[in-house]
Amino acid sequence: MNTEKHIKTLIIKKPLKLDCGKTIKNFPIAYETYGSLNPKKDNAILVFHALTGDQFVTGINPITNKDGWWSYAVGPDKAIDTNKYFVICSNVLGGCMGSYGPSHIDPSNQNIFGTNFPVITINDMVNAQYNLLDHFGIDKLFSIAGGSMGGMQVLQFISNFPDKSETVIPIATTSSHSAQNIAFNELGRQAITADSDWKNGNYDKNNTIPGKGLAVARMAAHITYLSKKGLQEKFGRKLQEREDLKFGFDADFQIESYLRYQGSVFVERFDANSYLYITRAMDYFDLAKQFKGNLSDAFINSKAKFFIISFTSDWLYPTQENKEIVIALNSAGADVGFVEIKSDKGHDSFLLDVPDFLYALKNFLDKSYTEKKNEE
Amino acid sequence: MNTEKHIKTLIIKKPLKLDCGKTIKNFPIAYETYGSLNPKKDNAILVFHALTGDQFVTGINPITNKDGWWSYAVGPDKAIDTNKYFVICSNVLGGCMGSYGPSHIDPSNQNIFGTNFPVITINDMVNAQYNLLDHFGIDKLFSIAGGSMGGMQVLQFISNFPDKSETVIPIATTSSHSAQNIAFNELGRQAITADSDWKNGNYDKNNTIPGKGLAVARMAAHITYLSKKGLQEKFGRKLQEREDLKFGFDADFQIESYLRYQGSVFVERFDANSYLYITRAMDYFDLAKQFKGNLSDAFINSKAKFFIISFTSDWLYPTQENKEIVIALNSAGADVGFVEIKSDKGHDSFLLDVPDFLYALKNFLDKSYTEKKNEE
Repeated sequence: MNTEKHIKTLIIKKPLKLDCGKTIKNFPIAYETYGSLNPKKDNAILVFHALTGDQFVTGINPITNKDGWWSYAVGPDKAIDTNKYFVICSNVLGGCMGSYGPSHIDPSNQNIFGTNFPVITINDMVNAQYNLLDHFGIDKLFSIAGGSMGGMQVLQFISNFPDKSETVIPIATTSSHSAQNIAFNELGRQAITADSDWKNGNYDKNNTIPGKGLAVARMAAHITYLSKKGLQEKFGRKLQEREDLKFGFDADFQIESYLRYQGSVFVERFDANSYLYITRAMDYFDLAKQFKGNLSDAFINSKAKFFIISFTSDWLYPTQENKEIVIALNSAGADVGFVEIKSDKGHDSFLLDVPDFLYALKNFLDKSYTEKKNEE
Repeated sequence: MNTEKHIKTLIIKKPLKLDCGKTIKNFPIAYETYGSLNPKKDNAILVFHALTGDQFVTGINPITNKDGWWSYAVGPDKAIDTNKYFVICSNVLGGCMGSYGPSHIDPSNQNIFGTNFPVITINDMVNAQYNLLDHFGIDKLFSIAGGSMGGMQVLQFISNFPDKSETVIPIATTSSHSAQNIAFNELGRQAITADSDWKNGNYDKNNTIPGKGLAVARMAAHITYLSKKGLQEKFGRKLQEREDLKFGFDADFQIESYLRYQGSVFVERFDANSYLYITRAMDYFDLAKQFKGNLSDAFINSKAKFFIISFTSDWLYPTQENKEIVIALNSAGADVGFVEIKSDKGHDSFLLDVPDFLYALKNFLDKSYTEKKNEE
């Protein structure tokens, strides 16, 4: 697969000191843009992707030939309207769609990094992405938005750069990974490293791919993205192209077949070591800890307008955890709105066609943009 | 490990026709008993174990040298009081603690069965266990009890043999495996079969053990046994014997270390193929389907006294699914009690020291026993 011709990269020359203590420089950040930056350069929205997302937010992803991950939300006349806004999204540091990550060459020895890539954090990710503002000559973003790990980046970004966005939209996220979140990520990592083809992370050199382990990791994660009720309504105990149980270990049930499919297509598009690094960054995320346990101090300097969105059936980052962000923002005296959207689609709701969510997102952005223009 | 001297078995000579269509005969059922059968033989309680349980209900399990899986509930003066009752428990068909299962020899070719063992069901399990009544000369049990898959066996047993138990105690269970339940089990099976040491189930012949895959399966299941809140309270983001994050992939967090430990100790005591077979039996369980979709018909002939117990924080077999059993029993005109026990310990509550649960269990049994004696 010739992916390189589809991938735009910005080489970050300036040294970036990572949370682990190491410094990286001259590293690539792969990005994509949608819509046009206006002459005043005040209509830009920086979108942050989740664990398995990438910079191809909408339209056809040129690598997978499937719809971009946020096609329901981003595009002409959509909630994040690319007729109006200039949308930027970059592949996260540690990712596998062109940004600096474990499948890159270690300049110190010319080998592929593998697990010699430095462990990165959400903070490192947003510090790397901040360079995109300079690149485009943007002094202040109109908005930053993202769901799940994208929401963590949103929170970290506005904490690091309190005056760099007019509005802030964390969706279906948390300010700190819970024990259950860490447990599911650790399960995925154990599945990958249990695969004999993982080879301590040096599978490239060995011409293997730990595909079975990565598929199991994906299946585990996928279950957490859907609600129990949603799964029951969509799949229940429906059989897979058969009249009755076969008394064997093939996929008798549609849910089994669906999970196996999700696992297998994921392996084609995602790198196992990147999965290890990005889940690690999520597990390390604890914004309050950066402020001696006081989450509201993360937002104390921001004049931005916040809008927090959660979903009723999201059990991975439930409403309660989103509300904790709202409480911290209120306590910091921030301008904050919050909505819990009714949906049976679980954590994945933010990626799907959930009209109430898309309407709320559009409404908040467009109203805020009009207000901003009126104030000028 | 010389396990055989600790394992009592009953050889079932009578042919048993399995749901898959095959017939087995002269097969072993391993069992254990606690307390004494009284002269009238009317004080027996048949306990059914869950997925990874065995016949060693209480006291020290002679194979693992750890406490039996239901030590909190069963023993002298405990909820299931072995001073008063005669407790019988057998390893399920398909298991790996002495009952007929995939690690046994296939009489047709003298090889270890592996995946040539027939796929068994909850119905097959209880039909095999029913032979224990004849063995002990018990005409009618005083009670049948079990949690999780043990509860499924309880429901199937009383449906098959409506007049063979005075009382019936399904705990933290369901009458039909949901899509999410199947999904988690399929995840575990995929983890096992992804292990290159699984060798299509013929690992015995190859002198390998698919230990990494089995450990991942156990970790996945273990997460589902605990509540999000319980995990957060017990582990949260506590670090494992370190002052701060190490920026690596070792277990930084206690929850990671705990899961790894749970995986590794499980591998020492459980057979990977048995895990495949028993999870399959759970996924196939759908009691209503046996009665053309009408669950109450499963109980229509029973004069037994039912007591259903669920736990508030159990998200694997939540109260709602236990209540569906209560509704079906009411609709069948059965004598039924129900209690939802408040606990943060998730599905595992039935195995743990949850005083309200243990009190409710003891109270129901002892009151029912006294009533029975008074009626005589």
